[in-house]
Amino acid sequence: MGQTRRDFLRQVGITGGAGVMFHTMGALGLTTAANAAETPPFTPLTRDALHGRGTKSVIVMGGGIAGMTAAYELLKGGYSVTVLEGRDRPGGRNWTVRRGTTFTDLKGQTQTAGFSKGQYMNAGPGRIPQMHVTLDYCKELGVPIEVFTNQNADAFLYRENVPGALNGVPVRHRAVKADAYGYTAELLAKATSQGALDAELTAEDKDALISYLRSFGAINSANEYVGGGRRGYAPEPGAHLEAGTPLPQYELSDLFRSTLGNYFSFEMGFDQAMMMYQPIGGMDRIAYAFAEAIGARRFRYNAEVVAYQNTTDGVAVTYTTANGPKTVTADFAINAMPPHIAAKIPSNMPAGVVAALGSVSRTNAGKIGIEYNRRWWEEDFRIYGGITNANTNIGNMWHPSYGYHGKTGTMIGYYNTGANANFYGALTPAQRLTEAVAQGKKIFGDVYGEGITASFSQDWASAKFSEAAWVSWPGAVGGQTGAGYRSLLQASGNIYFAGDHLSHAIAWQHGAITSARATVEQIHERVTA
Amino acid sequence: MGQTRRDFLRQVGITGGAGVMFHTMGALGLTTAANAAETPPFTPLTRDALHGRGTKSVIVMGGGIAGMTAAYELLKGGYSVTVLEGRDRPGGRNWTVRRGTTFTDLKGQTQTAGFSKGQYMNAGPGRIPQMHVTLDYCKELGVPIEVFTNQNADAFLYRENVPGALNGVPVRHRAVKADAYGYTAELLAKATSQGALDAELTAEDKDALISYLRSFGAINSANEYVGGGRRGYAPEPGAHLEAGTPLPQYELSDLFRSTLGNYFSFEMGFDQAMMMYQPIGGMDRIAYAFAEAIGARRFRYNAEVVAYQNTTDGVAVTYTTANGPKTVTADFAINAMPPHIAAKIPSNMPAGVVAALGSVSRTNAGKIGIEYNRRWWEEDFRIYGGITNANTNIGNMWHPSYGYHGKTGTMIGYYNTGANANFYGALTPAQRLTEAVAQGKKIFGDVYGEGITASFSQDWASAKFSEAAWVSWPGAVGGQTGAGYRSLLQASGNIYFAGDHLSHAIAWQHGAITSARATVEQIHERVTA
Repeated sequence: MGQTRRDFLRQVGITGGAGVMFHTMGALGLTTAANAAETPPFTPLTRDALHGRGTKSVIVMGGGIAGMTAAYELLKGGYSVTVLEGRDRPGGRNWTVRRGTTFTDLKGQTQTAGFSKGQYMNAGPGRIPQMHVTLDYCKELGVPIEVFTNQNADAFLYRENVPGALNGVPVRHRAVKADAYGYTAELLAKATSQGALDAELTAEDKDALISYLRSFGAINSANEYVGGGRRGYAPEPGAHLEAGTPLPQYELSDLFRSTLGNYFSFEMGFDQAMMMYQPIGGMDRIAYAFAEAIGARRFRYNAEVVAYQNTTDGVAVTYTTANGPKTVTADFAINAMPPHIAAKIPSNMPAGVVAALGSVSRTNAGKIGIEYNRRWWEEDFRIYGGITNANTNIGNMWHPSYGYHGKTGTMIGYYNTGANANFYGALTPAQRLTEAVAQGKKIFGDVYGEGITASFSQDWASAKFSEAAWVSWPGAVGGQTGAGYRSLLQASGNIYFAGDHLSHAIAWQHGAITSARATVEQIHERVTA
Repeated sequence: MGQTRRDFLRQVGITGGAGVMFHTMGALGLTTAANAAETPPFTPLTRDALHGRGTKSVIVMGGGIAGMTAAYELLKGGYSVTVLEGRDRPGGRNWTVRRGTTFTDLKGQTQTAGFSKGQYMNAGPGRIPQMHVTLDYCKELGVPIEVFTNQNADAFLYRENVPGALNGVPVRHRAVKADAYGYTAELLAKATSQGALDAELTAEDKDALISYLRSFGAINSANEYVGGGRRGYAPEPGAHLEAGTPLPQYELSDLFRSTLGNYFSFEMGFDQAMMMYQPIGGMDRIAYAFAEAIGARRFRYNAEVVAYQNTTDGVAVTYTTANGPKTVTADFAINAMPPHIAAKIPSNMPAGVVAALGSVSRTNAGKIGIEYNRRWWEEDFRIYGGITNANTNIGNMWHPSYGYHGKTGTMIGYYNTGANANFYGALTPAQRLTEAVAQGKKIFGDVYGEGITASFSQDWASAKFSEAAWVSWPGAVGGQTGAGYRSLLQASGNIYFAGDHLSHAIAWQHGAITSARATVEQIHERVTA
């Protein structure tokens, strides 16, 4: 009776597999779609999980989200845990830069953030989809959340070096969407009315389709798209006789040839569609909440792992301290470092495992935070949060999802990956700002360069202990079904692996967490076998 | 030099009209789209606005948003202002119900809200688009804002009494969107490839369109829509080898005949597209901030206007007090009451003006807040905010945009208008809850009826001083260009009118504010002529 529907469905899912769960949900009157609410099942360990089995100790190598999740969940079951972290803070790539943050990259360049109090940038992950278990940990750890604005009709899209009149013209997201959907509806309605799809559609289907297209594209009863209010007005509707004048639509040919409309697939992505969330005050609130829950006495900061091995009855891990290297032993270890970092550390892992760790393909990403002495995107452009996207080297700008109407604000001036991230990474921090401002001016004009009070940029490829933003598994090594990948899903002796790279949510904290949970389950199954 | 771009553009807009502004923005390198950032221009009065012209007094009839905006802006210019409000609170339809709120409707039914501390429902307006000047007053009055979740891919859509397999099946917003867009893309790509649109499109256009459609609809290289991850998974992508299994798509015929896809026009609306905002703590934070800025000594609550007239040298307004009717005089009055209410109050207004006030068409709206002892929409369904929409009598459910992860939560169980609102309005509060729960169970199952700890429902048609949610101007009386409407845009003697009904943003606070600003300008122009 006290069992919740979710518990019940989870149980069914665990014992019967997805097919049974599917069927059961149907019997409960739930739809197949409701099933999408089920996050990967996991049953936390209980305090008596090790009852009668003595003490079991685990060394966690890496205090990122995967390592801390593993430590946190093992502690629930009474395991003895030590976390070794090379940095002087928890979280790994989950990193929030605020006033006073100092960072020296692998090239020796040091930046100290001069942001105002309350201003911050999430240099790593910045958004959490609703279905990600990351939110469950926010709840469990008491980290309050607020909306991350991943989509905004009033933000801008910008494409240059494209054919047609929209080349180099910043345009509102809503205007592009209205036009793209409007022309799509017009063309399909015309084709349908002219019988071009009679082989595909019944008469009833055609009627239903036309009805849908009129709504979807805001086309008129002659199936023509003639613009309209959803794309914006100048002037806007106001008092008395001011009904507003819709801004004129772009030409069909200009619109589609600009590629601007191709942006909208982003916001329909499984893990990018609104609603999205962020911790209030910075993503690292999660990292610090994990660290606090684990306890300072179990955490070693500035503890760079320099060697690890299986021993006859457990593991031994050597790490740096202020007084030179120190070796600790335990029953098990979890290697929760990025695989390409782990691959470089001396160990007695099988050669195949080391090769697998080193076989990943790295992706770089970069971000710059730019603080302005006023929130001109709100004041001048009426943009409250959201993403402005460009096909230039900046990739994406993030209008901040916090501090609305405040005295100052911090834009993410670029969030880019791959070649664009490498381009900025090769610049000095000062040069990065100069370039980002030059690119931003193309979209927002001179205001983009005015009133800048602080900036901070991150290049993940040149960040010690990361050396990449995330990794992928190349097809050449079998992707995520190949022998290399599979070799890391089980223990090598008493040493396990965890991280988002061992999940199908790579680059998401969800991947790190679910991977760590799987490792916790593996260890506990072995201990209690 | 100190002039901001916005000030400059506004000045150009004021002196040269929209055409000049448009042109100027082009010269500044801004696009036409950027113009959409300009809210209706308004220059607040300054403290010396009445210098040398003596005291000028204004009675404001109605302490809703229009009346309070007028009072607030007139005070800036040194006018003497008195606000007469029939209710015991400011805000009019801007009304937040929380623990202890008591309300008796025109039928004599009394409800007292038993919500938990921190829980509330906005019985009237609940959301603010980015471009609405309402946000400017939040900033000016120090009312902090947060995101209102007007769109959520994981909320549900529900249609019954429709043809096909989706009749009566609650489905995820994201699944419907993926399928509707996918099939749209497939059909148009096929028609285009088969030459059906050769008369409309050049070869280059066709290539650009196909590229767009592949992105937009997630169709494959054969231009077929075969579902995919954006619509949801069961199981979801997780750790190790769990790549996730996309939920199977609905059939094209079922999808379009269900009319589910017709919902998406809502979220593309000029004033409904994300991002949207709300005051933290309840919409009435705006009302109380206005009231505080105006000052309690200028506010008369429980002051129902029972008569008003032009006099030889000004106005006289009679209102109720605990000690019987009282008459106050002033140079001017602003009638900021709903027009159909104003039409019933004795006055010496011209017959045509009274007829115009009474010529509006009223729309009813209803809402119910239901507090649950747990946030099952987050816990069981992973729905964090957003709107679940149905074609049943509930219309829309709002998943709350505040209190995420909290102990309890308050759903808006219905937000409906017209006949559906009247249907619920005819029920007792207890019956409304019973019916709303029965309808909600169709979508969310038994959980919708479990753990309800409090509820409160509002029927605007039976609310004294409102008697409607909003009004419109019927075509039979010329709509918003007819003589009746126009007669209210100028003073009748010394009496002016203000309210959202005298704007092209009816039912929005933006309309009330812009209308009130226009009235303030009219009065001050007359005084300083």
